[in-house]
Amino acid sequence: MAEAGGAAVLPGTRRWRLLVAYDGSGFRGFATQADPGVPTVGGALAGALARTARLPEPPPLVCAGRTDAGVHAMGQVVHVDLPEGYDGDLARALTRQLAPAVVVREAAPAPPGFDARRSATRRHYRYHVWNAPAPYPLLSATAWHVAAPLDLRPMAAAADALIGERDFRALCRRPPGADAAHPIVRRVLDARWREAPDEDVRGGRLLRFDVVATAFCHQMVRSMVGVLVQAGKGRANAATVVGLLGSGSRAGAPQLAPPHGLCLVDVGYDQPS
Amino acid sequence: MAEAGGAAVLPGTRRWRLLVAYDGSGFRGFATQADPGVPTVGGALAGALARTARLPEPPPLVCAGRTDAGVHAMGQVVHVDLPEGYDGDLARALTRQLAPAVVVREAAPAPPGFDARRSATRRHYRYHVWNAPAPYPLLSATAWHVAAPLDLRPMAAAADALIGERDFRALCRRPPGADAAHPIVRRVLDARWREAPDEDVRGGRLLRFDVVATAFCHQMVRSMVGVLVQAGKGRANAATVVGLLGSGSRAGAPQLAPPHGLCLVDVGYDQPS
Repeated sequence: MAEAGGAAVLPGTRRWRLLVAYDGSGFRGFATQADPGVPTVGGALAGALARTARLPEPPPLVCAGRTDAGVHAMGQVVHVDLPEGYDGDLARALTRQLAPAVVVREAAPAPPGFDARRSATRRHYRYHVWNAPAPYPLLSATAWHVAAPLDLRPMAAAADALIGERDFRALCRRPPGADAAHPIVRRVLDARWREAPDEDVRGGRLLRFDVVATAFCHQMVRSMVGVLVQAGKGRANAATVVGLLGSGSRAGAPQLAPPHGLCLVDVGYDQPS
Repeated sequence: MAEAGGAAVLPGTRRWRLLVAYDGSGFRGFATQADPGVPTVGGALAGALARTARLPEPPPLVCAGRTDAGVHAMGQVVHVDLPEGYDGDLARALTRQLAPAVVVREAAPAPPGFDARRSATRRHYRYHVWNAPAPYPLLSATAWHVAAPLDLRPMAAAADALIGERDFRALCRRPPGADAAHPIVRRVLDARWREAPDEDVRGGRLLRFDVVATAFCHQMVRSMVGVLVQAGKGRANAATVVGLLGSGSRAGAPQLAPPHGLCLVDVGYDQPS
């Protein structure tokens, strides 16, 4: 994706901060792709921004978390630099063009020095598992259906082993060109499972995994959920997680959890934003 | 829709009871239509039943609540008469063909005299309203977005006025050929609003209307929600509801709530089923 140049705001432009929710089902992720025919959240947003602010071409965007194909967001944060003259109701204008798949919940000029990705100090993702013999129609786009009964207690214990500052190489997709010997250190602040108290579901349990970290590497949450669900089946435990992280290799990691159960809940910033 | 002949089970057949969940978004309602190209839940189910039980043609079905186009179900109950010889795992076979849009949660031979519609003594519907300035992507297929702030207290008071045995003509679509002077009496057992405690939603409130009646007439829940949302805006109250029901005429009823917020939660039977 073409990107705005970090914290440097070009003369004659003003940086805007957008709070964006989307249903990722119909998109090939957030990041725009070389082929403009591939539907992406960023591409849709940039196109709507160009129409709204009458720009000659879609502007580059920077987001806090580059969600993959099929991943949803309630609180993605995006920045974009627009000509200083623009002062319309950006949230309303964008939502009118993009809803219901994409909704811009808020849009306002960003505080000085704000960068949606670099200023972010905390990301919160949520993953839903529908644990029941049969799939559930109204959850099929937002929860992973796992038919085998899961035991939450070992899942919670294994999740505890993820908390802290660790090398997450074994649970990340290596960035293109990166050295396999290089650790990928991230700090996980919280990771917990619980049963969602939603009366809307019948015939099974909706399990919810909330994980907060200063930052995530690629496919990290889906890798975590993959191993934690194995723990729920009695095929892994906290020691497995510790061993896996220690190995520094993806070879021993279980299957990735599918993308559609994942949602970027919100992004935290230390500076007022 | 072609219908099985009430409680009479033909010789050589056995009656099955199915518990069915569906996402109504892609269907033109439950009831099969004359044009077989129109996608209906009943049509999909009957087609899958014919394939599974090797029937020469899709069998007639009877359901407890004939949901309209776009309406969802967690616990629709259906009966169908199949040749006595069939004894496969019907729920699994049907779900394999129809998921994720339609899932057969349970399937078993019905108790003697069982009729999915006539034996039902209680239907429970739920309606969701997403009350927030902006729409919400992950709720756009299951909740009605109402942007104006709603006050739950008058909505609850007006809902109370619906409880009891009353003539609901003013809140129903009259059946074809029915006499407008004829009352349509139904008994509402419960009708209440509350805010869903779902942490999954941000930037607004998810309001949930639960209504239980011995039976409903056509479009009754959506008519109720239409007038109750007016109450939430301060444009109607319990007296309006009483007056509307007393008028016996749909002329004074507010706009119907859209179908996609509605879900058939479950159906009760007095006999063991």
